[in-house]
Amino acid sequence: MSLARRTFVIGGYTTPFIGKKHPDFVWAKHPEFGKRENPTLEQYITGAVNGALEATGTPAAKIQKAWIGNFVGELFSNQGHLGAAVVGAHPDLRNKPIMRVEGACASGGLAFASAVESIQAGTDVTLVVGAEVQTTQSARVGGDYLARASHYARERSIDDFTFPALFARRVKAYRERFGLTDEDLGRVAVKAYKNANRNPNAHMRSVRMDLETARASGDENPAFLSNAELAPYMRMSDCSQVSDGATAIVVVSEAGLRALGKSPADAIEVMALEVATGNLYEDGDPLRLETTTAAADRAYASSGLGPSDIQVAEVHDCFTVTEILMVEALGFAKTGEGAKLFADGSLEIGGRLPVNTGGGLVGYGHPVGATGVKQVLEIWRQMKGQAGDYQMPRSPTVGLTANMGGDDKTVVVGLYKNT
Amino acid sequence: MSLARRTFVIGGYTTPFIGKKHPDFVWAKHPEFGKRENPTLEQYITGAVNGALEATGTPAAKIQKAWIGNFVGELFSNQGHLGAAVVGAHPDLRNKPIMRVEGACASGGLAFASAVESIQAGTDVTLVVGAEVQTTQSARVGGDYLARASHYARERSIDDFTFPALFARRVKAYRERFGLTDEDLGRVAVKAYKNANRNPNAHMRSVRMDLETARASGDENPAFLSNAELAPYMRMSDCSQVSDGATAIVVVSEAGLRALGKSPADAIEVMALEVATGNLYEDGDPLRLETTTAAADRAYASSGLGPSDIQVAEVHDCFTVTEILMVEALGFAKTGEGAKLFADGSLEIGGRLPVNTGGGLVGYGHPVGATGVKQVLEIWRQMKGQAGDYQMPRSPTVGLTANMGGDDKTVVVGLYKNT
Repeated sequence: MSLARRTFVIGGYTTPFIGKKHPDFVWAKHPEFGKRENPTLEQYITGAVNGALEATGTPAAKIQKAWIGNFVGELFSNQGHLGAAVVGAHPDLRNKPIMRVEGACASGGLAFASAVESIQAGTDVTLVVGAEVQTTQSARVGGDYLARASHYARERSIDDFTFPALFARRVKAYRERFGLTDEDLGRVAVKAYKNANRNPNAHMRSVRMDLETARASGDENPAFLSNAELAPYMRMSDCSQVSDGATAIVVVSEAGLRALGKSPADAIEVMALEVATGNLYEDGDPLRLETTTAAADRAYASSGLGPSDIQVAEVHDCFTVTEILMVEALGFAKTGEGAKLFADGSLEIGGRLPVNTGGGLVGYGHPVGATGVKQVLEIWRQMKGQAGDYQMPRSPTVGLTANMGGDDKTVVVGLYKNT
Repeated sequence: MSLARRTFVIGGYTTPFIGKKHPDFVWAKHPEFGKRENPTLEQYITGAVNGALEATGTPAAKIQKAWIGNFVGELFSNQGHLGAAVVGAHPDLRNKPIMRVEGACASGGLAFASAVESIQAGTDVTLVVGAEVQTTQSARVGGDYLARASHYARERSIDDFTFPALFARRVKAYRERFGLTDEDLGRVAVKAYKNANRNPNAHMRSVRMDLETARASGDENPAFLSNAELAPYMRMSDCSQVSDGATAIVVVSEAGLRALGKSPADAIEVMALEVATGNLYEDGDPLRLETTTAAADRAYASSGLGPSDIQVAEVHDCFTVTEILMVEALGFAKTGEGAKLFADGSLEIGGRLPVNTGGGLVGYGHPVGATGVKQVLEIWRQMKGQAGDYQMPRSPTVGLTANMGGDDKTVVVGLYKNT
């Protein structure tokens, strides 16, 4: 969309993203299992909302509208109607217009897009929340729930783990066409874990991953698909984490900045925000993320920025192959050449174009509805020098987010400038 | 929200709303059960999208953005990510920004509100879809699914049928305070069925309801709650229908009207559109719909219109008591006096202020996500003389819609003028 009114992100708050292998996560083998429980979806939402209001110094009464991105609260938590749950976080939110938006793993990006559009419509102070709890069920049951992000009737039977299988299909096609190696995929995982190890909020903050482990199947890193054709193309280290968590950010107009006593120096400015949606009933080109390209091309065109301007990016690495396809779809590399950027260090925190500095979905974690909101907060943190141990050596001035739902079916691309 | 850009609805399309007791519905006792199946959620969406494009003469390529309201596709149809399902309805929708919004039974109203906001932001031609399939499970399982519109952890145990029980609680309180009678509730149902009997799209088009049946429990009209305290306050005839169906409408700016070769004479104009959201974790005043009042008061204030200006209304009668509470919350009657308007004929098709002329949720049916969109299409039809056998004697010039999610937790109120 064209941004006739200037739009700013003034920061926010994220809970840690946690799940199995995170030291604080209470699961069946946790020493306090039964005595202690993990936070509920409701607690995550309440925590993120109040955390963001406090972190940005925004009185709840000044929030005019809010959106929450969530994919399947009805299944993992028996809870829909999450706009009303946001109201439950603070008494001053009562009677404001608040709704949930959903587009699978791009739900958080859609919540952000809705806020940006609302600023264009004249709203001045908005709140964007993303939240998901996914650890209330086994990975296998969760895999069935998450398959509802694909065309369930058609794709459910590909494997118990529908999405890992859909992306294994991409790995296979891409490998056959472009000669992608195990090392290429392994390097993506190694970067993700390395960055996550510096990030106290990351799901995999305590888990080490070296190339030796990531490049081959084994006890430490199983190939887990039961689909025999696709099993060789997907290992545990290639997958984003099944995490719980929530993030909230405050998005404002120029008048909103003033109303909150903020200046552009506290904010990053949204230079472009584009949503593109593909056809649920068709498989796209396995070698390309076509919907991502459509969104990115529009974002570049409307902002006058191009891939070479980007200095930091948060991209949707639901699987390691996705991050490779993402850097190609976003114009950082030509089709078939994305893996080179991982091999030559360009995408490392100290590299030319750091990508997923906090660990991405593979290392930081992927509480589905939160991811698209967390990406924007990450860009704000890097630009404002708030990224702690994973801060880039020099704060970037132009950033990008790319949040994807399903197998390249809903994509939200944002471009940001440090102001 | 204040409507700085003029916003118009130019019509749309609705599928029939069907379920048990509708002659076309295929259920276990239907003569063709097993040979024939009911349409799927996907077929409903595709049918409504293309029906609306055709009915309004809108080429799919001219749609700039779209929203779909749906509550629990993940549960009844194993399908989320419905923005991508909308794209699947027509090739020219590919890569456009399309998302699902959710606010329980107000999901359709929220989709419409999102389109109106987008018009304010500069969009010119939008599509609003609402769809739900709920008959794939038994009423008891469906009751569990729908309980996710309330605070499930707190309210699920009130009864197997959570929402009928929550509204029975309102009936009980209202009866004790204001002396509501069985006849009062019965009259609401009789009006709903009488209107539905004139409406070929209505779920209950072939089912007769007289006051004798509606006013008392019996084999024909059972009290079905197992909660002994609340059972006397809710009968089958008091309930909205568990229906399948979809509706889509086209919402445009003045430039959009021109782009489609339309004039204001083809359209109704949106004079106000307000969303209010309550706290999921608290019960409101059982005697009043406080969130509805908040939304309506803002809509009246921003438009300069008042309750006495309204000539036709579509209100959310999820239960008969809700319609009584709605006419009070919307200012058509004082608190405690709503039932009088049903007794004196004011709300009949030939009365002073016809409400739910096609049968409402009790008679027309309630495919949850579709309802809020269907309400707007109904107002368009009455204003444009397109309501067939249930057309009002004189086309109204000012109308209102009130769509509610949960127990008065998300409310969308719209005001419309014939142009």
